[in-house]
Parts: sequence; structure tokens; C-alpha cells
Amino acid sequence: MTTSPLLTDLYELNMVQAYLDKNEDGEAVFEFFVRRLPARRGFLLAAGLEDALQFLETMRYSAADIAWLKSTGRFRDNLLDYLRDFRFTGDVHAIPEGSVCFPGEPLLRITAPLPQAQLVESRLINILHFQTLIASKAARMVLAAPVKILSDFGLRTAHGAEAGNFSARASYIAGFASVANVLAGQRYGIPIVGTMAHSFVQVHGDEMKAFETFARARPEGVVLLIDTYDTEAGARKVVELAPHLQADGIAIRGVRIDSGDLTAMSKKVRAILDAGGLKDTLILVSGGINEDVLQGMMKDGAPIDGFGIGVNLAASIDAPSLDCAYKLQDYRGTPKRKLSEGKQTWPGRKQVFRAYNSDGRMAGDILTVEGDRQDGEALIVEVMRDGKRVGAVPTLAQIRERATRDLARLPEPLRQLQTGIDYPVQVSDALKGLAAEADRLTKR
Amino acid sequence: MTTSPLLTDLYELNMVQAYLDKNEDGEAVFEFFVRRLPARRGFLLAAGLEDALQFLETMRYSAADIAWLKSTGRFRDNLLDYLRDFRFTGDVHAIPEGSVCFPGEPLLRITAPLPQAQLVESRLINILHFQTLIASKAARMVLAAPVKILSDFGLRTAHGAEAGNFSARASYIAGFASVANVLAGQRYGIPIVGTMAHSFVQVHGDEMKAFETFARARPEGVVLLIDTYDTEAGARKVVELAPHLQADGIAIRGVRIDSGDLTAMSKKVRAILDAGGLKDTLILVSGGINEDVLQGMMKDGAPIDGFGIGVNLAASIDAPSLDCAYKLQDYRGTPKRKLSEGKQTWPGRKQVFRAYNSDGRMAGDILTVEGDRQDGEALIVEVMRDGKRVGAVPTLAQIRERATRDLARLPEPLRQLQTGIDYPVQVSDALKGLAAEADRLTKR
Repeated sequence: MTTSPLLTDLYELNMVQAYLDKNEDGEAVFEFFVRRLPARRGFLLAAGLEDALQFLETMRYSAADIAWLKSTGRFRDNLLDYLRDFRFTGDVHAIPEGSVCFPGEPLLRITAPLPQAQLVESRLINILHFQTLIASKAARMVLAAPVKILSDFGLRTAHGAEAGNFSARASYIAGFASVANVLAGQRYGIPIVGTMAHSFVQVHGDEMKAFETFARARPEGVVLLIDTYDTEAGARKVVELAPHLQADGIAIRGVRIDSGDLTAMSKKVRAILDAGGLKDTLILVSGGINEDVLQGMMKDGAPIDGFGIGVNLAASIDAPSLDCAYKLQDYRGTPKRKLSEGKQTWPGRKQVFRAYNSDGRMAGDILTVEGDRQDGEALIVEVMRDGKRVGAVPTLAQIRERATRDLARLPEPLRQLQTGIDYPVQVSDALKGLAAEADRLTKR
Repeated sequence: MTTSPLLTDLYELNMVQAYLDKNEDGEAVFEFFVRRLPARRGFLLAAGLEDALQFLETMRYSAADIAWLKSTGRFRDNLLDYLRDFRFTGDVHAIPEGSVCFPGEPLLRITAPLPQAQLVESRLINILHFQTLIASKAARMVLAAPVKILSDFGLRTAHGAEAGNFSARASYIAGFASVANVLAGQRYGIPIVGTMAHSFVQVHGDEMKAFETFARARPEGVVLLIDTYDTEAGARKVVELAPHLQADGIAIRGVRIDSGDLTAMSKKVRAILDAGGLKDTLILVSGGINEDVLQGMMKDGAPIDGFGIGVNLAASIDAPSLDCAYKLQDYRGTPKRKLSEGKQTWPGRKQVFRAYNSDGRMAGDILTVEGDRQDGEALIVEVMRDGKRVGAVPTLAQIRERATRDLARLPEPLRQLQTGIDYPVQVSDALKGLAAEADRLTKR
């Protein structure tokens, strides 16, 4: 997953050139946060931190990178020398992956010499924004269809290769069961699943022959796609085929339907399978599934066991981006904030404290400055010091468990698809005081 | 840009296991096409072909890939042996990149032994879908703001690393001038641009000092960000600074505004710059720009010279996916089509002929079977034979010229953001006849 350090915006290099010219390398504090939620959303699920930390640990400029930068004629030797020896040596604090969090709360804080903190900006946002986007979307699907099997089928219409892999990781964190993308299985250890395409049936021309060939080729976990021509006829063929396969010890684990009215069709297919003695054969569906469709199907009692979810997940169709920022909060011990119209930020190193009700549900967060102790659980923890990881690296399973726990602790209205309330995030007096100080110190 | 061949859906491997078990390796024809346009869209701009062909040429399974697949216990030696020696040896026909095209028209056709044609599916769609999505989106922006400088600023909120690079490439094809992503500059030769972040001004505290430091560090193409605190005050500082820089031979090429009412502010800033003798200093803006905003600004006469466009481009916010498919059209010489509810396709190897009016504008397309000669320009050409490129590889500049030419030939209503008409794509009698034949030959 290592990418070129040139995967960055030119302005980062421009600024670092200017900083180096002036030896402007004091300690800088930047925080990454989401400004506001998309419509209908009630919370975020933090994801991407492990990839972000891996990026910071491994970011290096090769001789070829340096030579190319030199060839552009834009940069001077002091910058090229600096990049040649580049290592990220800063500290990182973050809200752990799999945590529920809210707008304004820093998901990640970088404390590092200014040029370092600036150079990592573009790729850090690129990683954290997308994985948090997808984890937050997937969490809605998990909440809409608890106890159902959800699988990420989104690779093909994800936005490029990395989006396919990140989507698998982020949705698994949120509670998805599996993924179709084999590489995500290899890379992250996520269970991989797959059936057949319509082309498989078409190649054989004869649907029955296609089913039998497939079942004998992949005898464990046979799932047959039954909608290439006529779905009910397809289901009847499955019933007809089952005893022949059973005689050879092969069970039909499931059927997949990928078109038509999935709720109505699943009921018809369930009846055909049950009548044919295939009560344990699962019904899996795909095509156009999102959290609203899932909720509707649950309400209508569709006898569906699992869902393959594609582009609605992997491109987060209803809200394909989050309004987010990576902002300077402190430089050389002086708090900083941005005052641009409509984009004001809170300055300083921050901490978030979360209170819980007696039933264990989240009651409210307080956003404050680091060192100002408030009641509740402190969410932001140190994860990297002097460029080296602090503490044990959590497994993906542990991150996923955290998400399951946090989603269960959401206030009930926030577990709905159309949330009617805003979760309370208070700004502490200490933070308001720091903002006033920052304004006083700024020569505008 | 080489990715692991495991970046694929598991079902491809499942199917190929079954095909190899039965020596089912006849010649298969698959076509990739977009089923329908997103709301308000009138056309597609084809992109991604060069990356798709590079993928086909370089797709190899390493020993580690094979070992991992074996370790899953899912696959037998006949499949593993096949993958170990895998080379794509098929033919590819395609509509050239940078061409305007329409739903139902195949952007790409694969003709290859069945297991090969199946194994490449997921990644081919992953490449072609996204680049065509972004090129089509970018084209709308180019049409909304002709003669303006448009730059891709979308890396940070693009969906992962590859989306950032592909967005740069696809938008440049559509007519964008430049990109902020340095890697895209290195990889594709696209001009790179960049200014400074608000953090740069904040670090200095003093805006004037920040401007001067930046200008002296990057004396060619100085662009100053003037909205960190108060945009008009920022513009006045630029005017004040200009003579001092000029004395040292440094010109202020432009200012950037990233917040507030960009149209109103650009007029105020233009007046301040002009009054200060900076008539040649460009006004560049960023933040929330999409094709509708561009059109509105053009209509309101905003004195803006260039636009940095982020997530609205790189994630195609209004329509972050295209409904597309890679479908079997022929196997061993027998035409195939899918009949699933609402997803019927036209069978066979296809060709598209395009007619033009006397003014050079596109008049209508005919979708027909290969070999059925119709009037007009044939759009689909051979680009790969027996796994090897045919003809010269077009440069990105040539692809971009094709896009410019084709966008100029669009019927006028399709050049509007809200198109009122559907471009006429007729299905030929020959193709209808083939579909009837395919249905007759299918045992359902």
C-alpha cells in the first residue's frame, strides 16, 4: 500500500520551500476533523488511522523522486536535500479507529516540526477522509439490518483500486461480514465471498447444466445465481438439482437474486425452496441495496439472509464526501485559528471527553483543550511518539469490536436512518478562552 | 500503477475454476458499456482505455499470489497452474479515449478465451468506470466555463490514491488545464499548480510577512491566498507589497480566494487590484465549485480567471457512479444476451456509426453488429490483437485534442448543463435480428 510521496498537492512543497528558506521549523500542531455531517447523518465512525500511521512511518523520497523534482526547476537544493533525508519524527494523537465521533472532534492530531507536519497533509486527508466516509456509511447499513450478512461487492465501481481495498476495510470495521475483493481478503484477512456471474449461466446456455457444473467445481459453499432468465424457474431448477448433488455430498448453501423486486421475489423463492425441502438454503440478494432499501426489506419481512452491497457502499452514493479539514492549531506554542468566512476553527491541542448515561448510552461530549480535565472518558490517545508507534497495534478484529461496542452505545435516535437530533458536543470554557487568546495574538 | 491481480472479485476465480474443470475455454466476447446516464447528463466522455490496456498487458500472478491462493484451500492445482502462466492473449476493440459516446455503446470489447475474458472483468470495470465518470463530469465544467483555467484540486477528498491520479488524468483529457497533485504531474505530464494554505499565513501571524516570504521563496508564478482573515484587507496588502517585489523583479501572478461569496468578493478584489495597478494579476478561486456554480459565475460576470475544483470533480458529487456493465455477448460463435428483469442487453460484437450534420455537429448514432456497414463514422477500432497493442499509443495531448474536438461537435442542447433532449442512438435491424436469434438459441 506504499504510495509515492509525490502523491501530494504542490502547495505543500511550495510552502516547505519557503519554510526552509527562513529556517521556519518550529513545532506545529495540526488537527484533522470533519466540519459537519452530511444530510440525514447522525454520527461518524472513525477509520483509516492504521493506514495513516503506516504512511507516516514509511514516507520516503527515492533518488528518482528527488531527481524528478529537481528536473521541474521549481525547487532549490535546500528543499531537495531536506526531502532526501526525510523521516517523519513527530507525535500523533488520535481517536482510535472504530470509535463513534462527531463533527469538530479531532480524529487525528500531528505535532511535528512545521515542514514535516505540512508535507504529510494531502495524503493524510486522502486516507482518513475516505475510510471514515465509508465506515460511517457502512455503519448505517449495519444498523438498518442487524443480524443479516452484509458483504462489500463494491470493487468494480469503487473509485479506483485503493478505494476498493479501503472500502472493504472500512465496511468490515463497521460490521460487514465479508468482501468479494480477493486482494482485501489477502491484505486484511477479511473473509472473501463470491458466487457466479450471469455470464456463467449464459456460457452454458442451459441453466441447469451451469448450476451443476458450478456446484461440482466449488463444492464448499455453493451459491447459485438464479435470475439470468426467469428467477422462479431458476429456483425450481435448484430444487430439482439438489438431490442429485446431495447424493454426492454437496449441499446448496444459497441462491442469489440480482434483479427485479427483491422483496417480492425473495418470498416466492423462499416458498419454492421450502416446498422443495431446501429450508436451510440461504437467499442472498444484490443490486441497488442501500440502508433505506435494507430497512424497507426488514419492515416488509423479506426472507433474505444476506446482501451484497456495491456502489452504494463503496462510493457512499448519497454523500460521497465529508466536509473535512486539516488545520494548524498551534505554532511555536502560540494558538492559531482560521477566521475565513464560514470556516472558523477552534485553536489549540484538543481533547474530547464523553459522558455516558446509566444505561451505558452516550450522553454528550465536551470538546476542550488538552490538559483541561473534564468528567467522562477521554477519547484522544497518543498513538505515535517521535515517529514511532506507541503501544500495541490493534488488530482489525479489535477495531471492529470497538465499532460494535460504540454503535451499541449510540443514543437511540442516532441509530435511526433519519436522525431527528444533534448529538450534544459542548465547547468548554477553557477552549473558548484559548480562542479569544488566539484572536488577540493574531495580527490581521 | 501495476496492481495485484488479486484485485478482483472472488466470483471470477470461482467461475474460472469451473471452466478449467470442464475445459471450457472457447472464444468469448464481452463488452463494457454504460446502461444509462445520471440525471441531467447528456453524454459520456470515454476515458481509462490506456490504463485498461496497460493492465491487460502486464497482468501476472506472482509466486506469492499463487501461494496465497493455494493457502485459502479454495482452488485446485489446475487453476493455480493456469494462473501461474497467465498472459492475456486476446483482442481488444474500443471507442478511443476522449470520444463523446452514449449509453448502450460499447466503450470496450474483449475477445479472448473464456477464462481470460472473465478474469479481467473486475479491474477493467474499476478502471473504465471511474475515469469515464470523471471525464464526463469534468467535460460539463469545461463547457460551463470555456476559456477559464480549470485545475483539479481534488486529491485530498478523492477516494484514495488512485482516484486522485485518475481524476487528474480524466479531467485533463476533458480540458482541464492543470492539477495540484504532484504525482499526476510526474506520471502523466500534466502541468502542476499550487499556491499556499491558510496555515502558511497563520504560521507567520502577520499576513504581509507571509506574502513576502512566499513570493521570495517561489518567485515564478507567485499566487497569494488572501482570505485567511479578511479578504479585502488581504487584497490591499497585495497592492502594497507589489512595488517592493517588483523592484526585485518579482511579479504577483495571482491571488486566491477560498471562502465567502466568491462572485461578490472577486469583484471587490478586482477593483482593489486594478486601482492598485495590478491589472494583470489573476483572480483564482476555490471552494465548492461545480458546473452550476461556474455557470452562475459566468452569468454574473465574476472577474475570475481560474478555478481550483476539488471534491465536486474528483468524487463527481452529484453522480458518483455510472450504471455500467461488462456483459457476455457471444460464446463460441453463438450470440448471448441477458434477459434479467430491467437489465436486458443487446447481443453480439457491436459497432457504432455516427452521422454528422452539415455544420459538423453530431446528428445521431446507429448501434449495429460488427460487419453491418452503415453510413457515418465507425467509432469502435481495434486497439489490441493477441495481447499486443495495435497501432501507435496516443499521447495524452492527442486524447485531449480528441475530446476538445468531440465536445465542439455535440449538438447545442447537449452542451447545456440541463439537457432537454436525448441524443438519438438507433438500434439497427441487423442487431435486432441477432437479438431474436440469441433468444431462440437460449434454453431458459
